[in-house]
Amino acid sequence: MSERFLLTIEYDGTHYSGWQRQLNGPSIQQEVEHALHRLTGQRAAVTGASRTDAGVHALGQCAHVDLDVSIPPDKLPFALNTLLPRDIRVLQGERVGPAFHARFQARGKEYAYRIFNRRHPSALRRHFAAHVALPLDDAAMARAAQDLVGTHDFAAFQAAGGTAKTTVRTITSAALTREGDELLLTIQGNAFLYNMVRIIAGTLIYVGLHKLPEDAFARAIETGDRLLLGPTAPPQGLCLNRVYYEGEAL
Amino acid sequence: MSERFLLTIEYDGTHYSGWQRQLNGPSIQQEVEHALHRLTGQRAAVTGASRTDAGVHALGQCAHVDLDVSIPPDKLPFALNTLLPRDIRVLQGERVGPAFHARFQARGKEYAYRIFNRRHPSALRRHFAAHVALPLDDAAMARAAQDLVGTHDFAAFQAAGGTAKTTVRTITSAALTREGDELLLTIQGNAFLYNMVRIIAGTLIYVGLHKLPEDAFARAIETGDRLLLGPTAPPQGLCLNRVYYEGEAL
Repeated sequence: MSERFLLTIEYDGTHYSGWQRQLNGPSIQQEVEHALHRLTGQRAAVTGASRTDAGVHALGQCAHVDLDVSIPPDKLPFALNTLLPRDIRVLQGERVGPAFHARFQARGKEYAYRIFNRRHPSALRRHFAAHVALPLDDAAMARAAQDLVGTHDFAAFQAAGGTAKTTVRTITSAALTREGDELLLTIQGNAFLYNMVRIIAGTLIYVGLHKLPEDAFARAIETGDRLLLGPTAPPQGLCLNRVYYEGEAL
Repeated sequence: MSERFLLTIEYDGTHYSGWQRQLNGPSIQQEVEHALHRLTGQRAAVTGASRTDAGVHALGQCAHVDLDVSIPPDKLPFALNTLLPRDIRVLQGERVGPAFHARFQARGKEYAYRIFNRRHPSALRRHFAAHVALPLDDAAMARAAQDLVGTHDFAAFQAAGGTAKTTVRTITSAALTREGDELLLTIQGNAFLYNMVRIIAGTLIYVGLHKLPEDAFARAIETGDRLLLGPTAPPQGLCLNRVYYEGEAL
């Protein structure tokens, strides 16, 4: 009899066309489904909480899958990791109820966006941070980010192709810190629109370069005008840190 | 007329057989020489301060080269970076005297060794840290590392193939810090024997696992016995942070 399992997955998205199964190019979903098939002999669809884009990383993607296996859930990571490529690691496996849904039941997510701010790009961080060569005004960026916090209509903050029914979202925190040449935006919210974090990061970069005013977010929230925001920042800076479910503090 | 230049170079060593030109596999030296040749039309040998092994990284390798160019030294990085693969970045260029030697005149180096200490390996850090699955005793490791500091005969701390005339070295600091699941050893000294930092890291891991006593370094320094130390830790954890020259505080 099949049971539902929740997997927590870390991945380096550099060499994938994204989480979701696709015709052109390898996906993380496909790799996980392939490893599960090799392990169990079953063809089961894996449903992720977030459909991360090509080049985007995850420290804690969550995905559910129905399997008929006798293996204890905490042994699943070990078994799957012997079958997965080394840029995908299953960190946790647990049994969940048959109605559990990794995406629909997520009550929040935390993303990180990293900016490498130095004249010359970094060889070591090239896949894990966006490069900005000109000096950034961190203080202005940190102040601007505060306007994101709260429940707002983020209609302006979505890429074409977004399919959300409502564009109202709640951001619970948006913090900017710097360690040496690397700026880190950590943002938590109940849900995010398509490309929302990358549009926020691109806008923050423009605020940091004084190409946009510090109240850019406030004005875009008020007017719904995408043109008041900056460009969509590149995918490699983005990382899905964590997905929160019922009973987990956001 | 040819002049001597000092280049500061960052690289991700993952896809190279090391710094030094080799018959089998690409080297960082070779890539830099190739870029210089494309830029200047001259075939010039680049001499690095440290001959890092395959898979070892650098944030600040230093190398000198003789060139007959009219380009200002601070423009060299921009010109070379357009010609180099993205896992090698030239960060700085400066003119030095004709007798300057990147290796012989280095008065010190700083290396970092990173250990990812968690049950399951990390997808994102797989190329930049050694994985240790069992819990490590950080405090014991930090105490053990203190025995390295000072001027000692490190004869036990070198791999076969080392060609140093003397094995006496001065370690000025060896600090261990933890950030989440990642342990970072930062070590500074006047010079290091072949594989010395990786042998130190492997020994620290064994001390942290309680497979070796906390005074392992002290005893190996005293006796010169390699067998009192741990295994050579894997290359991907190692990074050459910086090379110090005359007038720079170590």
